[in-house]
Amino acid sequence: MTIPSHHTLLMTGAAGGLGQAMRARLQANCQVLRLSDIGAMAPAQAGEEVVQADLADADAVKSLVAGCQAIVHFGGVSTEQPWGPILQANIIGAYNLYEAARIHGVKRVVFASSNHVMGFYRQSEVVDALSPPRPDGLYGLSKAFGEDLSRLYFDRYGIETACVRIGSSFPEPKDRRMLASWMSYDDLHRLITACLTTPVLGHSIIYGTSDNSVSWYDNHLARHIGYRPQDSSDTYRDAVYARTPEPDLSDPAVQFQGGGFVKIGPL
Amino acid sequence: MTIPSHHTLLMTGAAGGLGQAMRARLQANCQVLRLSDIGAMAPAQAGEEVVQADLADADAVKSLVAGCQAIVHFGGVSTEQPWGPILQANIIGAYNLYEAARIHGVKRVVFASSNHVMGFYRQSEVVDALSPPRPDGLYGLSKAFGEDLSRLYFDRYGIETACVRIGSSFPEPKDRRMLASWMSYDDLHRLITACLTTPVLGHSIIYGTSDNSVSWYDNHLARHIGYRPQDSSDTYRDAVYARTPEPDLSDPAVQFQGGGFVKIGPL
Amino acid sequence: MTIPSHHTLLMTGAAGGLGQAMRARLQANCQVLRLSDIGAMAPAQAGEEVVQADLADADAVKSLVAGCQAIVHFGGVSTEQPWGPILQANIIGAYNLYEAARIHGVKRVVFASSNHVMGFYRQSEVVDALSPPRPDGLYGLSKAFGEDLSRLYFDRYGIETACVRIGSSFPEPKDRRMLASWMSYDDLHRLITACLTTPVLGHSIIYGTSDNSVSWYDNHLARHIGYRPQDSSDTYRDAVYARTPEPDLSDPAVQFQGGGFVKIGPL
Amino acid sequence: MTIPSHHTLLMTGAAGGLGQAMRARLQANCQVLRLSDIGAMAPAQAGEEVVQADLADADAVKSLVAGCQAIVHFGGVSTEQPWGPILQANIIGAYNLYEAARIHGVKRVVFASSNHVMGFYRQSEVVDALSPPRPDGLYGLSKAFGEDLSRLYFDRYGIETACVRIGSSFPEPKDRRMLASWMSYDDLHRLITACLTTPVLGHSIIYGTSDNSVSWYDNHLARHIGYRPQDSSDTYRDAVYARTPEPDLSDPAVQFQGGGFVKIGPL
Amino acid sequence: MTIPSHHTLLMTGAAGGLGQAMRARLQANCQVLRLSDIGAMAPAQAGEEVVQADLADADAVKSLVAGCQAIVHFGGVSTEQPWGPILQANIIGAYNLYEAARIHGVKRVVFASSNHVMGFYRQSEVVDALSPPRPDGLYGLSKAFGEDLSRLYFDRYGIETACVRIGSSFPEPKDRRMLASWMSYDDLHRLITACLTTPVLGHSIIYGTSDNSVSWYDNHLARHIGYRPQDSSDTYRDAVYARTPEPDLSDPAVQFQGGGFVKIGPL
Amino acid sequence: MTIPSHHTLLMTGAAGGLGQAMRARLQANCQVLRLSDIGAMAPAQAGEEVVQADLADADAVKSLVAGCQAIVHFGGVSTEQPWGPILQANIIGAYNLYEAARIHGVKRVVFASSNHVMGFYRQSEVVDALSPPRPDGLYGLSKAFGEDLSRLYFDRYGIETACVRIGSSFPEPKDRRMLASWMSYDDLHRLITACLTTPVLGHSIIYGTSDNSVSWYDNHLARHIGYRPQDSSDTYRDAVYARTPEPDLSDPAVQFQGGGFVKIGPL
Repeated sequence: MTIPSHHTLLMTGAAGGLGQAMRARLQANCQVLRLSDIGAMAPAQAGEEVVQADLADADAVKSLVAGCQAIVHFGGVSTEQPWGPILQANIIGAYNLYEAARIHGVKRVVFASSNHVMGFYRQSEVVDALSPPRPDGLYGLSKAFGEDLSRLYFDRYGIETACVRIGSSFPEPKDRRMLASWMSYDDLHRLITACLTTPVLGHSIIYGTSDNSVSWYDNHLARHIGYRPQDSSDTYRDAVYARTPEPDLSDPAVQFQGGGFVKIGPL
Repeated sequence: MTIPSHHTLLMTGAAGGLGQAMRARLQANCQVLRLSDIGAMAPAQAGEEVVQADLADADAVKSLVAGCQAIVHFGGVSTEQPWGPILQANIIGAYNLYEAARIHGVKRVVFASSNHVMGFYRQSEVVDALSPPRPDGLYGLSKAFGEDLSRLYFDRYGIETACVRIGSSFPEPKDRRMLASWMSYDDLHRLITACLTTPVLGHSIIYGTSDNSVSWYDNHLARHIGYRPQDSSDTYRDAVYARTPEPDLSDPAVQFQGGGFVKIGPL
Repeated sequence: MTIPSHHTLLMTGAAGGLGQAMRARLQANCQVLRLSDIGAMAPAQAGEEVVQADLADADAVKSLVAGCQAIVHFGGVSTEQPWGPILQANIIGAYNLYEAARIHGVKRVVFASSNHVMGFYRQSEVVDALSPPRPDGLYGLSKAFGEDLSRLYFDRYGIETACVRIGSSFPEPKDRRMLASWMSYDDLHRLITACLTTPVLGHSIIYGTSDNSVSWYDNHLARHIGYRPQDSSDTYRDAVYARTPEPDLSDPAVQFQGGGFVKIGPL
Repeated sequence: MTIPSHHTLLMTGAAGGLGQAMRARLQANCQVLRLSDIGAMAPAQAGEEVVQADLADADAVKSLVAGCQAIVHFGGVSTEQPWGPILQANIIGAYNLYEAARIHGVKRVVFASSNHVMGFYRQSEVVDALSPPRPDGLYGLSKAFGEDLSRLYFDRYGIETACVRIGSSFPEPKDRRMLASWMSYDDLHRLITACLTTPVLGHSIIYGTSDNSVSWYDNHLARHIGYRPQDSSDTYRDAVYARTPEPDLSDPAVQFQGGGFVKIGPL
Repeated sequence: MTIPSHHTLLMTGAAGGLGQAMRARLQANCQVLRLSDIGAMAPAQAGEEVVQADLADADAVKSLVAGCQAIVHFGGVSTEQPWGPILQANIIGAYNLYEAARIHGVKRVVFASSNHVMGFYRQSEVVDALSPPRPDGLYGLSKAFGEDLSRLYFDRYGIETACVRIGSSFPEPKDRRMLASWMSYDDLHRLITACLTTPVLGHSIIYGTSDNSVSWYDNHLARHIGYRPQDSSDTYRDAVYARTPEPDLSDPAVQFQGGGFVKIGPL
Repeated sequence: MTIPSHHTLLMTGAAGGLGQAMRARLQANCQVLRLSDIGAMAPAQAGEEVVQADLADADAVKSLVAGCQAIVHFGGVSTEQPWGPILQANIIGAYNLYEAARIHGVKRVVFASSNHVMGFYRQSEVVDALSPPRPDGLYGLSKAFGEDLSRLYFDRYGIETACVRIGSSFPEPKDRRMLASWMSYDDLHRLITACLTTPVLGHSIIYGTSDNSVSWYDNHLARHIGYRPQDSSDTYRDAVYARTPEPDLSDPAVQFQGGGFVKIGPL
């Protein structure tokens, strides 16, 4: 049973993949689920509010946040893209969001960070919350910025944030790399719920994956969050191996945790 | 099945909460269970010896320990109290107990230490056996003393001790903080049994909780003890949340692992 | 289901205890299982090749390795012995094997290292992949050499190796020490399979035991391998305690992880 | 003697305090010193080129960097300011600079980061290159962004950067906090010279202070840079104590390394 | 030049070896130096107050501390002794002192701890402020208690303490062990001065020795104190070697940092 | 002044570069300096014994060691060479030496290990005594073997060894890499003297360089040895830069600490 932890919960990025997957699930976590995106969203259902907003628009974000007690921030760019959109949505957008949270007294944020903050670690390394960031591109860099921003708003204003370094959250793992990085939608919801309900969240970094046998992550510094995955990519392992070729270990996309992201953009 | 590990096992603090809860359980761990307390205890059953003794009385403690092969030391003050009783029962008392153990050749002790040795860590921090003590009051301070004392008796005389930093051992968790710190009586018994039976105990520090999702503790340095909790506070989580208010994060009793203990005494 | 990861897999040491135990199991991991030993082996079955070879014979080893894609290296001495045989089989032999792998382009090796690389740690200590080696004898020393050798061949030539510090792999644990160090044959096979199939192995150190409650090992740096033991020595614990005497803590064979090995040889 | 390490060296921020102080000194490090700022600079002397440019103007920065072999980047905002100028000069500006370096094949950058990246550590803590950032304001946040950006350009393109977390570089320490954070201009020049000339710089973080007795910094991970301060704030200690009041330990500006910066902006 | 940091400075243990050595030196650190001991002291000079007091007498200690701004606490037992005097002077005495400091608002204490807190580390080990205590006797144990007590009073009441783990402070080193542990009186005074004057002391642990080549200590976590020794045992090395025998490495007094203390008391 | 620490001191490798450089210097460390090499040596002077011996000849080594109290072991191969000579001189030779030391009761060895044990770390990394070995060739591998061997003889037989990872000990630094790795002959002698005279050596790893500004080494775990370099490569820096070309950062010989060694042998 999910405990409704806040009256009004804002979820940004509602039109994106994860936003759509969490929309129905997060209704159990609140009385009112406010949904936002720069793009079109399905109409509001009972218990929902739908607000179209551009994260780069500071005033719009301020209005959006007013009256919320907590935020699940999926909004912004979630793939490797040129500097322009990354800057607008993920850097200016993140700043606008935290300023709005500060102004309106929001005290807890679940920030969708990414495994791409750590994408230049090797697939034979295990990282934890203290490993220094090694972003694999502009997207990962913008998420590292968001993490540092949230640290500032915690140290300065006491706004608690869980920086969830989400792996690969899809209906199922698509390739061999995702056997390590995969997170089921249900586990993602479990993790968000844990972040919203643990008594003291502080400023925390947690890797977001299911209970996969092959893993690059050590979450022992985030035990106070209480996340326990219940799914695993192992179920899909044989099928994935059967339909995908042997990895070429001379390919940076195979060597590094960031996978193909380490090769996008100018070479 | 619990393996009887020693012929005569002394359990101090038999009249206290944990002592009463362990009394019946520990009979399976020995041929003779010697029980002691400063207060009145239920009469001896078969396989039991009951000896009233004040830990602050060195001679009484020497007599008490004679003929035992191992000690489970619950005795002394187990709540925040003024310096006087803490000094008598927990500082002088602990010294008397280890001196008696040395004189009579007892080689293994399970020392009931406390989470209050670490009470000034935050509830968003995870501590392990190497984290420096940060006691939250005189009680926690006295337990830190006991741990150092036992280290001395290990380095000097080879007396093995498990310092069990017990969380909150009650029939069930009473509040949200205890969802992290709770330890069932059965798990406490499992942990004591592990300490008594592992081939080599050395001088070890182990956090005593059940298998709670939200946790502040990392026991990886105590794997040689072989403790595996089988209960969890998670069972009680929904009920506890339903009957307790939202935590006030500006309250030190919420911020710190020691809970309300950090506020007892002069301010 | 075990995924066949390589066409031709070489297993050395096929006539030894572990070699015999893995022979049938490893057929599922490849199309052709090439078996080798200095001693006599059972005749080749379907899908097998049997090649008698002395690891100390560089030319023989070169021939042996030709045409393989991966190697499971159990060959050589696996007990404490005098310097002569250790030198020939484990030092010269390991060098010959890696040279052959380099020459023939073999890119992945599962190297049967040993808990005796770490035998002079105490049974109350927990070690991980970064703990410096403390071999307990010439055998452990030769395995430490093999680990460093494999590191060189990884850094220089990109040959991936899992150094599996095998505990005590027997049908069941024989004594109290093995309750910590025991590894079932099935778990050993699971671990080898994980090493052969994980997308990126790198150069990794992993402790090879089953899921025993009492343990001296921390494998968190090897999560990328994806090994999950499914057996446990706990099943045998009561029986082992019943048939073995109390450990004498003044005996180095009890104090140290290496057990009896720490006492073999000149004193 | 300073070794001239590059033919054309670009120093940005030439009109600022540090830029002015380093201008004459850096002429010994190159054949041509190209100077740039958004504001007016003194006219070019022999061996100098003066180019006015706005870091937020990507094309201007590309032109600016063309033909340089190394960059000392002091440009941008160097005090706590509102988001607008920080964004333009320090975030967009840093991105433009590294893009220009990538395009023009510049392989070494000395990036003037700041102690304010770590400003929310306490003045009784000692930090090193692995301590996670805790910026004390938007300025420190923008420098943390620059550090992560430079890491990306190192991992992806091999551009070496020294992130120099400069303390307080002034003619002399102004207050008690600066006794810890002070760096003489000559020491700053020594540090830049070390960064420019060490054979392999990699991506490195180094704290930039003189050899002050009271210090919050541990540079042992940057020994390969070879920086050896020769000045010390100790010379000024008595005078500073004489003219400044006792610190008020309840003031965050005294408690935290960032000093007054931790209190600038909305409260 | 020593900066007078407090108006009235209390030094306990004024009749002991270190107290006598520091008495004249500490006058430069304050306007009024209050001196205390259980034993007889030389009469008060100008700028001094002399108060005989037993640390075990809570009321006497409260009077003693009234009106002071800082305390240098040398008082109590400073050698290995039986439990009785250790308990009275070092455990009860330390508690009385910190209670008095709390009541009278004293905010900074220099607590003379001891190398004997760490006496069971080997002379081939290097310890720092995070190494867990391993006291070598009841004296070292009582100093470990005092350190934990001071931590509590810092976390709870903001009283800053430097726990100075003094090595061997004598006019010159007496034996080979003291070549590592020796601290000149002038260096001790420098260290106390640093503790009294550093802007933020926090709760800190620092090893107190001169700048000896052979050392067991790493003070990098105490750089904020600003201690710089100017003397060294090296001056005495040849003479000490000439007059002392070769160490017997089978003697615990040679093996362990605590020296002869590890052998005092019941064996 | 160098203290003569042992009556008869054996130095192997006396005909090599370091052996020749230390021969005269080490006479001050003993009454009798026994010199050995496989090759021809200058005739014995007063206070010297000259014994030609092949380290691979166990009996010869046993004779060689008889009557010594300590050994400085420079013998064996000191450059990258094929497996055959490495095996004979450095692996079999080291084993023979330690066996002889065990048999004849020698209790202290200064083992000339090498920076090439760590040669595959980057020149922008700083390593210490706990960093895992990453040898850059067969020579470095053989030295890693010697270090593990000496650990075994310490844990098993109490023979103390200093593994001195010598950088580049020549009359002066020859190239830019040696500015980091250089050790003057006088500093090498100081380090050997420190190892021979420190009261407790234990089993220790120490990097052997002079006090060079650019360094890859952190010796803080070896402070108990008491080595203080007094020379520095900095003196030669300008001249070395003037006569050597800019390093090519794409060359492994520049990237890695091992320099050119990382490229010797089969590619």
